[in-house]
Amino acid sequence: MTTPAAPEAPLARLSLNTATTKAWTLEEALDGAVRGGLGAVGLWRDRVHEVGLDKAARLVEASGLRVSSLCRGGFLTADDDAGIAAALADNRAAIVEAATLGARELVLVVGGLPASSAPGGPALPYPAGDTTGAPDADPARDVVAARARVADRIADLAPHAAEHGVRLVLEPLHPVFAADRAVISTLGQALDLAAPFPAETVGVVVDTYHVWWDPDLQRQIARAGAEGRLASYQVSDWTLPLAADALLSRGHVGDGHIDFATLTRWVAAAGYTGDVEVEIFHQGIWDTPGDQTVATLAERYTRHVLPHLG
Amino acid sequence: MTTPAAPEAPLARLSLNTATTKAWTLEEALDGAVRGGLGAVGLWRDRVHEVGLDKAARLVEASGLRVSSLCRGGFLTADDDAGIAAALADNRAAIVEAATLGARELVLVVGGLPASSAPGGPALPYPAGDTTGAPDADPARDVVAARARVADRIADLAPHAAEHGVRLVLEPLHPVFAADRAVISTLGQALDLAAPFPAETVGVVVDTYHVWWDPDLQRQIARAGAEGRLASYQVSDWTLPLAADALLSRGHVGDGHIDFATLTRWVAAAGYTGDVEVEIFHQGIWDTPGDQTVATLAERYTRHVLPHLG
Repeated sequence: MTTPAAPEAPLARLSLNTATTKAWTLEEALDGAVRGGLGAVGLWRDRVHEVGLDKAARLVEASGLRVSSLCRGGFLTADDDAGIAAALADNRAAIVEAATLGARELVLVVGGLPASSAPGGPALPYPAGDTTGAPDADPARDVVAARARVADRIADLAPHAAEHGVRLVLEPLHPVFAADRAVISTLGQALDLAAPFPAETVGVVVDTYHVWWDPDLQRQIARAGAEGRLASYQVSDWTLPLAADALLSRGHVGDGHIDFATLTRWVAAAGYTGDVEVEIFHQGIWDTPGDQTVATLAERYTRHVLPHLG
Repeated sequence: MTTPAAPEAPLARLSLNTATTKAWTLEEALDGAVRGGLGAVGLWRDRVHEVGLDKAARLVEASGLRVSSLCRGGFLTADDDAGIAAALADNRAAIVEAATLGARELVLVVGGLPASSAPGGPALPYPAGDTTGAPDADPARDVVAARARVADRIADLAPHAAEHGVRLVLEPLHPVFAADRAVISTLGQALDLAAPFPAETVGVVVDTYHVWWDPDLQRQIARAGAEGRLASYQVSDWTLPLAADALLSRGHVGDGHIDFATLTRWVAAAGYTGDVEVEIFHQGIWDTPGDQTVATLAERYTRHVLPHLG
């Protein structure tokens, strides 16, 4: 069998996120990454749970690949006791899974407004009879309070993450997802939330799809590097028109509007030396044979990202 | 005939943007706003051009309504001489139109990436044969350069606006539109672009649909007030799922996820005493009889906005 990319190999820092080759099992994704000459994989928990944690850990170890991240924990915005307890239990389990898999970085998608976190969740019209004016505090719409709960949950989870040598990696999501998936919308906001905690316990991820538009991005990437919190660099492209489900609207690097040369130089200038993970949710890519997708990732990475990694 | 709302009337600060009642001509929109008891209208240039500028000005004056804004100028990101000249000519014309209509505030949607400003513009794959790596400066994707051109065009237009007593009002658009409609994505960025110019010449608009998600919003609204640049407050709601065309994905105030109580209090605390304009692009609302839409605007404004205007 082939072996993973050596440190000096051209694709040594390229990581296949299992969400990109959705049709592949964990074992198929590991084999495909090795076959493609990649150095790492980013794992989603569903692929891990399918085979069981211990077997997944053995498969990963046998592959010789690094695990650049485990996706994902989070969904921390619940405002009821049961929801908070369930979120903490799930994230504590994710921390143990990351440690067992040898994944240093656990990516957290922190969740949207409490009553609307279901993807495509319904709008929440006020009762037709209500003419009393909007309540001063409307929990279903109070994004400020939802963000405060995220800060509280990170404080709850940080000691557990530190015990297991896992870093909680806060992911700012594109503001198109602010209502239903993540109330963290900018890298600066993620760094502010991380600030109270040690850099080895709470970090941030730069996902080009989510942050490319941010006028403050260069400064915040430099800040993330200076603070030692730049935990992951994920690449995929912003394509138009949006897919019916915006979540599935990403494209291969180079197919959209993102300036990967500039963003990659900013990330490199911030001192990032880790893996470059490709995570694309896109039906057309999911319908493509995995080896072909991996070959496209490698070709686009080599053309648009690698020359600028320094 | 009825007369417009007196200053103390409950709807005196409510403004109907003509884009909300798209099926109405200018005259129908003016009559409908007066019939509904509103104090102002926001005008789109297409409605004005249909009847001609001079007649439009007479109709507006006869209605007794204030013109809370003229929409819109902008699209300033062209990087070729012909495109720049065309943008300057169109915006100079818009400034004259605003002055003639008695509109103090000319809203500018500044445009997206140069080669992709067409709504739903195509993605821009690199030539399949190109294996030379992404160019260091890719004009079609260089959002930093596009923003710099917007600053240059504002400097070109500001003297003309000042001569005519019109204010250029920079509109931050939701980042979902950063590639194809506006490279200004946050209120803070708009205020930074406005900073070199007098507050009476370059201002900003707070449109709840575009900025509600911004973690820095309260601070930037206060800053806009302190700098005397808070030129317009526009309200519509963020509803999910997104419409196929994200531009048409807005809803009536109260039908979505935005906390109007809190945002309106922030705007009032910043010293804003102007009109509250309702601008909604939504096929279902366009298919509704105009008087019914105006009645809904009034009811939602009275319930969710007015109580918090102070």
